[in-house]
Amino acid sequence: MELTLAQLAGQLGVELRGDGEVRVSAAAPLQSAHTGTLSFLANPRYRRHLKTTQASAVVLAEQDAGDSPVPVLVSDNPYACYARAVALLYPQETVSAGIHASAMVHPEANIDATARVDAGAVVAAGVQIGPAVQIGPGCVVGEGVVIGQDSRLVASVTVLAGAQIGRRVILHPGVVIGSDGFGMALDKGAWLKVPQLGSVQIGDDVDIGANTTVDRGALQDTVIEAGVKIDNQVQVGHNVFIGAHTAIAGCVGISGSTRIGRHCTLAGGVGLVGHVEIADNVHITAMSMVTRSIHEAGTYSAGTPLTKNTLWRRNAVRIKQLDTLARRVSDLENKL
Amino acid sequence: MELTLAQLAGQLGVELRGDGEVRVSAAAPLQSAHTGTLSFLANPRYRRHLKTTQASAVVLAEQDAGDSPVPVLVSDNPYACYARAVALLYPQETVSAGIHASAMVHPEANIDATARVDAGAVVAAGVQIGPAVQIGPGCVVGEGVVIGQDSRLVASVTVLAGAQIGRRVILHPGVVIGSDGFGMALDKGAWLKVPQLGSVQIGDDVDIGANTTVDRGALQDTVIEAGVKIDNQVQVGHNVFIGAHTAIAGCVGISGSTRIGRHCTLAGGVGLVGHVEIADNVHITAMSMVTRSIHEAGTYSAGTPLTKNTLWRRNAVRIKQLDTLARRVSDLENKL
Amino acid sequence: MELTLAQLAGQLGVELRGDGEVRVSAAAPLQSAHTGTLSFLANPRYRRHLKTTQASAVVLAEQDAGDSPVPVLVSDNPYACYARAVALLYPQETVSAGIHASAMVHPEANIDATARVDAGAVVAAGVQIGPAVQIGPGCVVGEGVVIGQDSRLVASVTVLAGAQIGRRVILHPGVVIGSDGFGMALDKGAWLKVPQLGSVQIGDDVDIGANTTVDRGALQDTVIEAGVKIDNQVQVGHNVFIGAHTAIAGCVGISGSTRIGRHCTLAGGVGLVGHVEIADNVHITAMSMVTRSIHEAGTYSAGTPLTKNTLWRRNAVRIKQLDTLARRVSDLENKL
Repeated sequence: MELTLAQLAGQLGVELRGDGEVRVSAAAPLQSAHTGTLSFLANPRYRRHLKTTQASAVVLAEQDAGDSPVPVLVSDNPYACYARAVALLYPQETVSAGIHASAMVHPEANIDATARVDAGAVVAAGVQIGPAVQIGPGCVVGEGVVIGQDSRLVASVTVLAGAQIGRRVILHPGVVIGSDGFGMALDKGAWLKVPQLGSVQIGDDVDIGANTTVDRGALQDTVIEAGVKIDNQVQVGHNVFIGAHTAIAGCVGISGSTRIGRHCTLAGGVGLVGHVEIADNVHITAMSMVTRSIHEAGTYSAGTPLTKNTLWRRNAVRIKQLDTLARRVSDLENKL
Repeated sequence: MELTLAQLAGQLGVELRGDGEVRVSAAAPLQSAHTGTLSFLANPRYRRHLKTTQASAVVLAEQDAGDSPVPVLVSDNPYACYARAVALLYPQETVSAGIHASAMVHPEANIDATARVDAGAVVAAGVQIGPAVQIGPGCVVGEGVVIGQDSRLVASVTVLAGAQIGRRVILHPGVVIGSDGFGMALDKGAWLKVPQLGSVQIGDDVDIGANTTVDRGALQDTVIEAGVKIDNQVQVGHNVFIGAHTAIAGCVGISGSTRIGRHCTLAGGVGLVGHVEIADNVHITAMSMVTRSIHEAGTYSAGTPLTKNTLWRRNAVRIKQLDTLARRVSDLENKL
Repeated sequence: MELTLAQLAGQLGVELRGDGEVRVSAAAPLQSAHTGTLSFLANPRYRRHLKTTQASAVVLAEQDAGDSPVPVLVSDNPYACYARAVALLYPQETVSAGIHASAMVHPEANIDATARVDAGAVVAAGVQIGPAVQIGPGCVVGEGVVIGQDSRLVASVTVLAGAQIGRRVILHPGVVIGSDGFGMALDKGAWLKVPQLGSVQIGDDVDIGANTTVDRGALQDTVIEAGVKIDNQVQVGHNVFIGAHTAIAGCVGISGSTRIGRHCTLAGGVGLVGHVEIADNVHITAMSMVTRSIHEAGTYSAGTPLTKNTLWRRNAVRIKQLDTLARRVSDLENKL
């Protein structure tokens, strides 16, 4: 959609510096923008591209506004402002409601007249699908699942019996909600399956990335609070609790019964053992292993730095000897 | 199902301490149990909840039995006993046999009359499906696959041509069995695909978690022995062998031609390089990297502990210098 | 297919040492080969099996040829030669063209008459499917997707709107192409979704393993160049660029906007943070974390070696104290 900068600034509620009659109809990165596009600067890594941008306008923080060769939308949060501007420039197409002829919907499912169920989707008995929900092609929705207004199962999503999905939730392709947790008792050398009787509760405004899995609880429910954002290929074990507005990047693994606070961030590849508690506002850097509860807000890390393989081999041997080395240093100190 | 404690104790073959007429019909954790529920104590982390539990009965080990405020089922393995009790309290619903009208079953597939094939499932030619097998909605079963009695493909499972699945196997949603292994030869700078001619053999009583992948063998088969339990998002490479009753937690990656013994446990996020052998009764702790064969039973670990990010940054620099540091210590020792 | 060694050598363009009339019709590993099979030696780990092999012929490098008890196909690249030989011995079955009666193909999709669309597949409007393409059972192909000649979506693959797939591409089951990238702006404590407007471009001869995910770009496209091979359960973030002929093993995670050169290899479980650049011919060993750009070709590593758990516990404590230890060593040096 084409908008003037004056219209954009008005709708976004931000200050415009420059010609309000200039028109934009698309978004582009600073370095490849051209006439008619809106750009933004949020990551300082890309600041060098500002001076030479061909964009028709840029969303900037106050301190960068003076460096722009083109009109500026001034925001104290340029990235969020840009996100809103893009939502205005690219309004989501309204999809038509209705159930595709090839969808397999159980007669006892309750589907709002404004919802859409796409080709090849399977919807079981007792399902409740709210207004404007989209069930994409190839999705499977199990018995008694409840899906709130405006939520979207993009395609090839599997939600098993009893899960409760809030409003405005997005489940990307390959997501599995409500699979059995990994509960087993060792019995004379063999593993005995422990029936998984809980379910999954997903709050409003949760996004769950492609091929992420969220297990049902063993006795009580696995809970993901409102506003949580989860990237692709994340594993959420049974009875995990994830507090509101926590963001979890790709390939994270969260073991059973672990409790994560609100407003936390887990970077890519982080792993948490089971039965630990993470306080609110905790940030864990990439590929760290969390083996204990964290009671204090802050940023935590583990892992070893990348080096050339030849150096790594020499250092890795020393890691095995580290306790001995520390004792040798103590001996030296005692001798001196 | 409601049972008296006397009935439960009888069917489980364990000692009851307390009133045999008390009735239970559900299971619950110690801390949130209420009248009519059975609870258990297996993880010492939760012992503090025993004294105040509102459960009607608890499964306990002998040494904890005296601390219970309510009737006790005494077991030398409370978690396994509890698992069996739950299976009695929550008997699995028998699903009706038959092939859903929307299932796409090849006329040359051989499906037992007591099996069930759900909506939207695709079953290819030459498939053999045993008694009481369940093929859930959206599953794809390739040519010549054999699935043994009482096995269950929950939903959205893909089993490619030729795989052999034992009895009482559970494959959770998103599982892929028999995809091509990552076999490639480098030829003048480009990768040449090596045809993957083997298949996959899965023994009885194997569980495979959501979105886990098991590749077919290059020449011989990938083999998962009986009783193996695999969690979600695990990758099993071509020609891997996993010995009976080994348990593998989420996000583990096992590279090609690696051989894992029996009764092993791999914790979450463990990675094994290819062509190594792991003895029986080996336990690897979370997120460890295994680069060599392990010939001796025991527990093995790798990885660095989580600390505040500021401390980690200082230490990480030192890891790069560790070999130098060790040499400096040797120099000091020589000088002294 | 049965071939004489003379025929094989001729078609492969390699030297035969031994009886050209000997016939082979299958392939097998050295140690389990039998009459009528062709074997090979590429990994020195298996050299010990050469002397006693029961194969009818072996593909070997010049330096090993003298050790063979059976006829030899001599190649300076035995593994590539073997791969080609296997392709001759096991010619791919030609699958019949056509659209299965149960496939849900939009009338505005453009499907070449020589392509095949299997049972239960869903193909949206505006899709262009080239000659001899196979869309396997249960696949979902979104609006406007283009798939080049001879490509194959094995089964249960999801390709979302607008993705461009080259020729001879193989997408294994559970692959998701074009899911939204993990783009969010923090706005007063809540995460605001940033619309993901780019798409995905996949070059010719790319293989993508089971349950791997490739996100669409935020503004520009995510790009995978020709000849790239990706294993199972890999996560490729938005706007990632992967240069031609790079190979990526299982469970790798690549964060958004990271740029990987050509002819690189990433071993299993490697993780890369976002916005870094990796030069051509860089090799990263298993489970390493990459947090900075790499400008020089070579092999790089991170991680700690596996030890018995008791030793690891002692050493792990010392890692936390490493900076302090280094300072103590400096103090000692100053004192001496």
